[in-house]
Amino acid sequence: MLSLQSESAARWLAQAEAHLEDILVDHAHCEKKAAGVAMNLLFAYVDSVELARAMTEIVNEELEHFHLVLDLLDRRGIRFRRLAPSSYGRRLHELIRRAEPGRAVDRLLVAGLIEARSCERFALLRDHAPDAELRAFYGGLFESEARHHATYVRLACGFAPEEDVRTRLQELAAAEAAIIDRGDPEPRMHS
Amino acid sequence: MLSLQSESAARWLAQAEAHLEDILVDHAHCEKKAAGVAMNLLFAYVDSVELARAMTEIVNEELEHFHLVLDLLDRRGIRFRRLAPSSYGRRLHELIRRAEPGRAVDRLLVAGLIEARSCERFALLRDHAPDAELRAFYGGLFESEARHHATYVRLACGFAPEEDVRTRLQELAAAEAAIIDRGDPEPRMHS
Repeated sequence: MLSLQSESAARWLAQAEAHLEDILVDHAHCEKKAAGVAMNLLFAYVDSVELARAMTEIVNEELEHFHLVLDLLDRRGIRFRRLAPSSYGRRLHELIRRAEPGRAVDRLLVAGLIEARSCERFALLRDHAPDAELRAFYGGLFESEARHHATYVRLACGFAPEEDVRTRLQELAAAEAAIIDRGDPEPRMHS
Repeated sequence: MLSLQSESAARWLAQAEAHLEDILVDHAHCEKKAAGVAMNLLFAYVDSVELARAMTEIVNEELEHFHLVLDLLDRRGIRFRRLAPSSYGRRLHELIRRAEPGRAVDRLLVAGLIEARSCERFALLRDHAPDAELRAFYGGLFESEARHHATYVRLACGFAPEEDVRTRLQELAAAEAAIIDRGDPEPRMHS
């Protein structure tokens, strides 16, 4: 699904259901971080008008989702709080090449893979979350993550030949699958 | 005007008119940086729901303005390019106290003063720019910068008593006036 090379183990859904509050708080942070990543990419590659427009759209959407999650927390009486992130993002970022244009390709593809994994996990919550409001909530967010994934892959093709991008996407997706397979003892959206 | 303790010298308007292309390109960068500043504040003080909402609005508006300026450059056949910033932002940031909650107050007030100075300079361009399109363009942007200034000052009052914030605003505004009075040899929105 969406370039991913693995499906989430049943382990994660069990972890998510047992620690739903932590997952929801972490989700809010993930939306905020996704906005931050898009803003950083806008700053780094501002010469590309196409990238600047796409990143602006993603910043706006992710911040909108951030507030949707904050509102959801509010309705459920869950206090939004700081939370140590899972190791997922850090491990993925270690894979990014240092030299351009490989760096641009990798930053975009890593961002795209995180969107893809979020999308896959939203689909799991859409199908298995314990109440109807949550199932509808994740059903509503699902589509935009898939769209963002496609945007990032398309933009990466602006920095290298498409064939090279596809090869690199497979490499990074394999690494992503290994990282997600290790899991994280703390319950998080990407544990 | 808007807490500022000085008016721009006629020198700046002359510099701006003589190097209008650089000013316009720098303006695009300023809008992008203003969005980045608001995003950084959102990340730093995410516990405050009021701040998070206000910063989201400012991020969205500044990015919208960024694209309005890019479109303006495009219509005029001016290539958007990287440009070394003036020393204005760096000098202002050196004034920010390190320890919280003073740091939060100062970051917000410095952001507010930059909005105020932009607002003052947009008013000058609205009244004196060489053609009608530019005069209308800056007239249209003027109001939002004034609003952002008020938002930043109001948010600073969430981190310290209002009287302390007002005193600190006067100190920082005096420093800002001194910095802007030194000017910058490179023509920039805040030179």
